[in-house]
Amino acid sequence: MPFNIQAELRYQVLQPSTALLSMHALSTPNQTLSEESFTVTKGASCEIFPLEVGMNRYVRLETGEVEDLLITYSVKVDTHPDARRIRDIDEVAVGELDREALPYLFPSRYCQSDRLGRLAYQLFGDLGHPLKQAAAISDWIYENVQYVPGATNSNTGACETLVERAGVCRDFAHLGIALCRALSIPARYFTGYACDMELPDFHACFEVCVGNQWFIFDPTRLSAPNGLVRIATGRDAADASLATIFGSMRMTNMMVSCTSDDFDPLSHDELKGRAVVLEP
Amino acid sequence: MPFNIQAELRYQVLQPSTALLSMHALSTPNQTLSEESFTVTKGASCEIFPLEVGMNRYVRLETGEVEDLLITYSVKVDTHPDARRIRDIDEVAVGELDREALPYLFPSRYCQSDRLGRLAYQLFGDLGHPLKQAAAISDWIYENVQYVPGATNSNTGACETLVERAGVCRDFAHLGIALCRALSIPARYFTGYACDMELPDFHACFEVCVGNQWFIFDPTRLSAPNGLVRIATGRDAADASLATIFGSMRMTNMMVSCTSDDFDPLSHDELKGRAVVLEP
Amino acid sequence: MPFNIQAELRYQVLQPSTALLSMHALSTPNQTLSEESFTVTKGASCEIFPLEVGMNRYVRLETGEVEDLLITYSVKVDTHPDARRIRDIDEVAVGELDREALPYLFPSRYCQSDRLGRLAYQLFGDLGHPLKQAAAISDWIYENVQYVPGATNSNTGACETLVERAGVCRDFAHLGIALCRALSIPARYFTGYACDMELPDFHACFEVCVGNQWFIFDPTRLSAPNGLVRIATGRDAADASLATIFGSMRMTNMMVSCTSDDFDPLSHDELKGRAVVLEP
Amino acid sequence: MPFNIQAELRYQVLQPSTALLSMHALSTPNQTLSEESFTVTKGASCEIFPLEVGMNRYVRLETGEVEDLLITYSVKVDTHPDARRIRDIDEVAVGELDREALPYLFPSRYCQSDRLGRLAYQLFGDLGHPLKQAAAISDWIYENVQYVPGATNSNTGACETLVERAGVCRDFAHLGIALCRALSIPARYFTGYACDMELPDFHACFEVCVGNQWFIFDPTRLSAPNGLVRIATGRDAADASLATIFGSMRMTNMMVSCTSDDFDPLSHDELKGRAVVLEP
Repeated sequence: MPFNIQAELRYQVLQPSTALLSMHALSTPNQTLSEESFTVTKGASCEIFPLEVGMNRYVRLETGEVEDLLITYSVKVDTHPDARRIRDIDEVAVGELDREALPYLFPSRYCQSDRLGRLAYQLFGDLGHPLKQAAAISDWIYENVQYVPGATNSNTGACETLVERAGVCRDFAHLGIALCRALSIPARYFTGYACDMELPDFHACFEVCVGNQWFIFDPTRLSAPNGLVRIATGRDAADASLATIFGSMRMTNMMVSCTSDDFDPLSHDELKGRAVVLEP
Repeated sequence: MPFNIQAELRYQVLQPSTALLSMHALSTPNQTLSEESFTVTKGASCEIFPLEVGMNRYVRLETGEVEDLLITYSVKVDTHPDARRIRDIDEVAVGELDREALPYLFPSRYCQSDRLGRLAYQLFGDLGHPLKQAAAISDWIYENVQYVPGATNSNTGACETLVERAGVCRDFAHLGIALCRALSIPARYFTGYACDMELPDFHACFEVCVGNQWFIFDPTRLSAPNGLVRIATGRDAADASLATIFGSMRMTNMMVSCTSDDFDPLSHDELKGRAVVLEP
Repeated sequence: MPFNIQAELRYQVLQPSTALLSMHALSTPNQTLSEESFTVTKGASCEIFPLEVGMNRYVRLETGEVEDLLITYSVKVDTHPDARRIRDIDEVAVGELDREALPYLFPSRYCQSDRLGRLAYQLFGDLGHPLKQAAAISDWIYENVQYVPGATNSNTGACETLVERAGVCRDFAHLGIALCRALSIPARYFTGYACDMELPDFHACFEVCVGNQWFIFDPTRLSAPNGLVRIATGRDAADASLATIFGSMRMTNMMVSCTSDDFDPLSHDELKGRAVVLEP
Repeated sequence: MPFNIQAELRYQVLQPSTALLSMHALSTPNQTLSEESFTVTKGASCEIFPLEVGMNRYVRLETGEVEDLLITYSVKVDTHPDARRIRDIDEVAVGELDREALPYLFPSRYCQSDRLGRLAYQLFGDLGHPLKQAAAISDWIYENVQYVPGATNSNTGACETLVERAGVCRDFAHLGIALCRALSIPARYFTGYACDMELPDFHACFEVCVGNQWFIFDPTRLSAPNGLVRIATGRDAADASLATIFGSMRMTNMMVSCTSDDFDPLSHDELKGRAVVLEP
């Protein structure tokens, strides 16, 4: 079930700039890439590297004197997501968590979990199993937050979304992460490509660590979890934004496409009592 | 059913200061006062006046050279609260509201109703009658916000309380006001004395205007609405704080007492389907 | 020096709605009106009234079944602003302020003066005379905040503007008010028409009360203070917004014009050491 | 110049809990430890481990049934700080930064650098060299923020401190980090022991990366930079708090001591034009 991914970014460069780009699909044991191609306008220079061991592939791009910058990316990706039964997943106490999961317990820029303890326990404290809690959080966000493009901006965090009840995929993911961390469930931000989204775009979801495995949730329900291709993982959008610009560049166009010849999306009903692992 | 009220404030005056005090019971057709006494330490001077026509009685106090300032207040107060059946109260469209109620539709310092529209309509939009909405808001706050002295400070507003789910009477009232205004129900802040509270203190509640009458709600359920004596009314605590200090004074002691020989508190159950008017 | 004022608002009415409009020039001893005309699309109904004694003229408009609502307003206005020498204005202690000025000492929705005491005293505490402080605040805002249309929205308050250093006239005025109140100077929000602004629009400034007179400042420097015509006064934009909508209406067009045949704007230099009173 | 460090924490354990503690001095080429001792009340169990390769030593502590938990730590530490001349340090463009420094360019929970770009460039944009900027930021914070224990809490971030101009070492460090990152200077949070502080306590400072070396600044000026012993490094206090509790424990006592027989603190004047590296 290979996904065909294409993305194109166009920038007007107002002064020579450096950009950190995070748009490459990750290469992992469970997410294999082929026919990958990445181009930038002649005159700009690039370095591609992992940011933290094995997780993100960043591109550091120097525009040089290029004024009209075109970045293209295409790749074929095979994934093997696994929808597991929640009741088969054993909990792990904080004291036995993988050490790498610990930083994902802490609050971060857009996920102010330190303020949400009371609310999270009120709403989800009685559910017992952390994957039931995470699934209930994802459902609660879907039911209580409106998807409203333009309602938020790049400064918006989970607390604002909780108050104003509107946002986009990034905000939905941040709120999911913040509520999970407030319950002492490690949670992280996922960015990626999503197959057959109605309005194709880069997408954001959240993952939680239970039993030392990471399960993915999409509180927007705009994607099917078995149609996701990982670009990057981080504490929140501060770590995994598509592009961080040092200098002055203005995006003038963006095109994203992720399709498959034989994609069979898992429906919300099929996922009842289950949670999906992207990297078993 | 006269209430016997006594209050005492003691301040250390660090430099000659001006204080605006709001601790006098109001005199209204439905709240009659007798045996009123107000004293301040000799050397300080006072002016008592209404702030806006008929509503609050402010004391403007000049400390002069007084260093240890003692303020005492006592009064007997008769009130005639009325618990009306909600279904008998006719709604009034915004277009037919008393003009004096209009400012209580707008957001204020601690009641950021302009941010709460989506949430308020989600939770309470379907209840129809504005008094049912106000009563449901009061119940919701009681059930979802913890009473935690010290959890908030004088900067805390309704949005913070909504996120952090903890506060004191002032915060409960602010959240009630903000949610009502977000539903286009005029709502105002009430400060007063409350008969037989377990921990005697100045108390805060909120009032909403429906059918051009003001109904009172106490989301803390620490007081009975028929045991309330009004000191002041305002948009929020910014208008009706006990003391606003210009200069430098430090409160060193506070004592409040409100008792009655034959007070029969209305229970939460007796109030089912009813709402209390203090000034019919 | 009569100002010729014209304004036109057009709305698409999505459901029968009530609007509170605040676009009429005030009629005061020092601001006289002639040839006033106000029209709304036939089918809508209006009531014009003062909101608080003598200050604002509100229009309460019921759209009825009108779907395409056009509101027009025109008037000729004579004003007599007076630029006084600051050193001739006597200060008045808080204890001797006009009572009506007291509410303008308190924090309000968009002017969180209760958080700004330390900063205000640091920057402006040493200037002594409150009009020097107000003038310095206005200059400081002009120099430190960028005028950036679109940088803020209707939720933005003075603290956000202080952090992000960008906004429009409304934000500049809110920050001015908040800093003045933090210094115990009564300050209020002014909305009006401004003669010969480069991009004609409704304008916002702030006024401070010193010696029981109100002086006006425009920290954007987009208007000359002697070219201002008052529409409304309030604690902040919550009290004096152009239009508060109950229902659902979408503005589709706005036109404002304020001109004069012989307007001679006071320059920033001519105002050195002076402050302008609109209502002596 | 060995520092003698002692610390003691006492907790009342209200239910069996897990704590992540960050109080061990780091062992690095430039910070050598001897005579280290760490004890916990019998019955509690501990695991000590580095969180991210080489940076922090975390203790994961399980209280078991212990109700009165005493934690003691003592160590002797040798350090070799180096005060370098700023003009000798070469800048490195963002494009040539060490990859490990990149995450310290991003905003984090308490360092909302994404909101501070305009302000940071206004105040410090013209200073050119990033170490001059960092030193000016540290001085500006010292001069403009008051050290007020109790003014802030564990939710407070840099933007609040910027508005309210009060805080403790943690807040001073967060503001320094946020302003540096807003200027595209990688900046991180430092916690440690500080020799001869007037009120001995755990201390927080900030470090910036210039020329791929990390320089330390203490905007409180409560410590001398050559008297610092590193415990942990992180994006902000979320990563490096003394204790993160999962369960319910209440601190009942804390004692910290860091002394030396022959410590000669670098004065603010001696540091003019210089910046200190702890790990050359």
